Amino acid sequence: MVNYQPFLSKDTSLLKTSEIRDLLKLTEGREVISLAGGLPDPTTFPAEDIRRIADDVIKEESAQALQYSTTSGVLSFKKELVNLSKMRGISSISEDNIFVTVGSQEALFMIFNIFIDKGDYVAVENPSYLAALNILRARQPNFIGIDVDPKNGTNLDQLETKLRQMKQENKKIKMFYVIPTAQNPAGTTMKLEDRKRLLELASQYDFIIMEDDAYGFLVFEGDSPAPLKALDKEGRVIYTSTFSKILSPGLRLGWVVAETDVIKEMEIYKQNVDLHTPTLSQYIAREAIKRGVIMNNLPKVKNTYIEKRNVMLQAIEENFPKEAKWSRPVGGMFVFAWLPKGIDTTKMLEKSMANGVAYVPGSSFYYDYSGKNTMRLNFSYPSKEQLRRGIETLGKVIKEELSAS
Amino acid sequence: MVNYQPFLSKDTSLLKTSEIRDLLKLTEGREVISLAGGLPDPTTFPAEDIRRIADDVIKEESAQALQYSTTSGVLSFKKELVNLSKMRGISSISEDNIFVTVGSQEALFMIFNIFIDKGDYVAVENPSYLAALNILRARQPNFIGIDVDPKNGTNLDQLETKLRQMKQENKKIKMFYVIPTAQNPAGTTMKLEDRKRLLELASQYDFIIMEDDAYGFLVFEGDSPAPLKALDKEGRVIYTSTFSKILSPGLRLGWVVAETDVIKEMEIYKQNVDLHTPTLSQYIAREAIKRGVIMNNLPKVKNTYIEKRNVMLQAIEENFPKEAKWSRPVGGMFVFAWLPKGIDTTKMLEKSMANGVAYVPGSSFYYDYSGKNTMRLNFSYPSKEQLRRGIETLGKVIKEELSAS
Repeated sequence: MVNYQPFLSKDTSLLKTSEIRDLLKLTEGREVISLAGGLPDPTTFPAEDIRRIADDVIKEESAQALQYSTTSGVLSFKKELVNLSKMRGISSISEDNIFVTVGSQEALFMIFNIFIDKGDYVAVENPSYLAALNILRARQPNFIGIDVDPKNGTNLDQLETKLRQMKQENKKIKMFYVIPTAQNPAGTTMKLEDRKRLLELASQYDFIIMEDDAYGFLVFEGDSPAPLKALDKEGRVIYTSTFSKILSPGLRLGWVVAETDVIKEMEIYKQNVDLHTPTLSQYIAREAIKRGVIMNNLPKVKNTYIEKRNVMLQAIEENFPKEAKWSRPVGGMFVFAWLPKGIDTTKMLEKSMANGVAYVPGSSFYYDYSGKNTMRLNFSYPSKEQLRRGIETLGKVIKEELSAS
Repeated sequence: MVNYQPFLSKDTSLLKTSEIRDLLKLTEGREVISLAGGLPDPTTFPAEDIRRIADDVIKEESAQALQYSTTSGVLSFKKELVNLSKMRGISSISEDNIFVTVGSQEALFMIFNIFIDKGDYVAVENPSYLAALNILRARQPNFIGIDVDPKNGTNLDQLETKLRQMKQENKKIKMFYVIPTAQNPAGTTMKLEDRKRLLELASQYDFIIMEDDAYGFLVFEGDSPAPLKALDKEGRVIYTSTFSKILSPGLRLGWVVAETDVIKEMEIYKQNVDLHTPTLSQYIAREAIKRGVIMNNLPKVKNTYIEKRNVMLQAIEENFPKEAKWSRPVGGMFVFAWLPKGIDTTKMLEKSMANGVAYVPGSSFYYDYSGKNTMRLNFSYPSKEQLRRGIETLGKVIKEELSAS
């Protein structure tokens, strides 16, 4: 049989498998409470509405809904995405500013490939979204890490200092990948004045912002602040969001709001990747916006998640050592914990799994694999009972680890 | 406003927009008979079956069908794909040899990125599938063109001569991208003895074969020969096919059959691109295989296309100049025509469009943009009446062009 190793391209060696997914495999078929995943609670899917919509669109529009469609997205869906984006405060855009993708993952994949060359300076929050970091790593940029503080969020003072230093060295940050709302994994949300300041820095130091608003519609405590794109006067922000958290991840739908110049580049790129996003998914989501299914369903999603978050936070309060810190996210699906410095959560994982609880070691979310004492805990998928028992067990494991060190 | 040009990555300049898609835009909103597209006839979609299936899977399996799923594909779907692949003669495989993609386009995108480096030698049929060539062009390989003769098909004598020459120069072809059945665009089908010979050459000269079997289930005249993968004893063949022609392009589903080493690389790559293929599409296609919808619908698809092909061939016979040659495809959706040498079909297109007929100039399908006298004509989408009128008009345009030159 042929050995494929000598045939692989050089790029292939740069690809990292997602630690989360490898980890999920370890839990398959075992009696483990997984706080490691990132799945929405399936009871939040408006399944009956989706069923009725699927039925209608296939009955009434099969010649279009089951056919090939255009690369940038189905026009009638893009029009509804203009409306949906407006509900996030993004106005003065048309369907020409919209691009439909296979989940926001594909949006990140395309944008990082379209813009980032080997050696480019790319700023990321530290920690940041693992799957985005993995795409970036394959582009071989120079990472500039911007710390995220559990209390004060993304450290813009640090960003400004670095920008000033780099300017003196004649270096430039090309792009800042940022998750301003319900940051994944750190759980922080950027204040409005910080958002404005970030845009000013982008203008002053001439960089692009890739804004990941995956949880923008999923803020369950207080108001969801306007995304950077809503405040963007120079067209510097490329915005992406997803239907995975507000309708159904199984449709694999994300969208981008950006200047038409960016949309054109995405169109050329996506012709190579997969020609277009599934048409049927787009027709279903179009109707879900149009018929109010998404907005009507949001209160249920938010209620489910705030209750589960509260259960998790209370259990952490009761079971984690006093020296630990953790986020109190106003949205999203995760709590992030900073344990006492001596603890290595990657090493501790095996013991935790043996005790029946899985989590994601936080270092995977750091571009430099620091944050060895951190962990990401999912509250959206497990039941409340599992959350309580899982955190209780995890608390014991941590305390044992502490007294052993 | 920000100017995005200075921010683009170097790779972005290598991307070519698909000529077919640009062309389709020109026909939008005009009274043009388009022989340029590549759309299936929507009357062949088993819409009512798909509607019932969608209804059932959302009703009975919404917690899974609307949820995230694994990167390589939904397990129960992969099992059905093993069965479907067997109907193409590919046996002794398991679900571990299957990988589900967003159309076979994504399979080609991933495989070419996983294997091809700048400067690698890649053999392609000349002409070959435009969208595959565009992905390859972005990888900057050295192309080795293998001529396709309207009568004798892909010229394996030429391939062998080149392989021998290159061996003397210490060079190696890494991969041969080939469409053995109902070749797109040339319409030829490789004979069984040639298939065996190609596999022997691959073994002797140690290269990989990327087999595109998009039309394997769509052979409407005679039997469909076994794909290379069915004859592959060394695991050298990476096979891809698609649901776009046998069920619905709007689901955007393709699949790969390959050695598990290849599947593993694809899994890592796809985690970056889009995490996984839409779950709902996979559940629908799974049931379509299981319930026999695909196999029961195939006779209708084949009948529709053989009738349309016959209409097109007869119209060409009656209207094209005697000096022209054209394919007589036993499957697929296209006729390819070689016009007298003096004619440049790219230049002629404007006149043809002014007369109300669009086609794709053939040079786009040649890696070296030769074949300036060729054109690809689609018979699957236009009505029979449109086919007759379109070819009649096109014949006049060609004859005018001939007498002018």
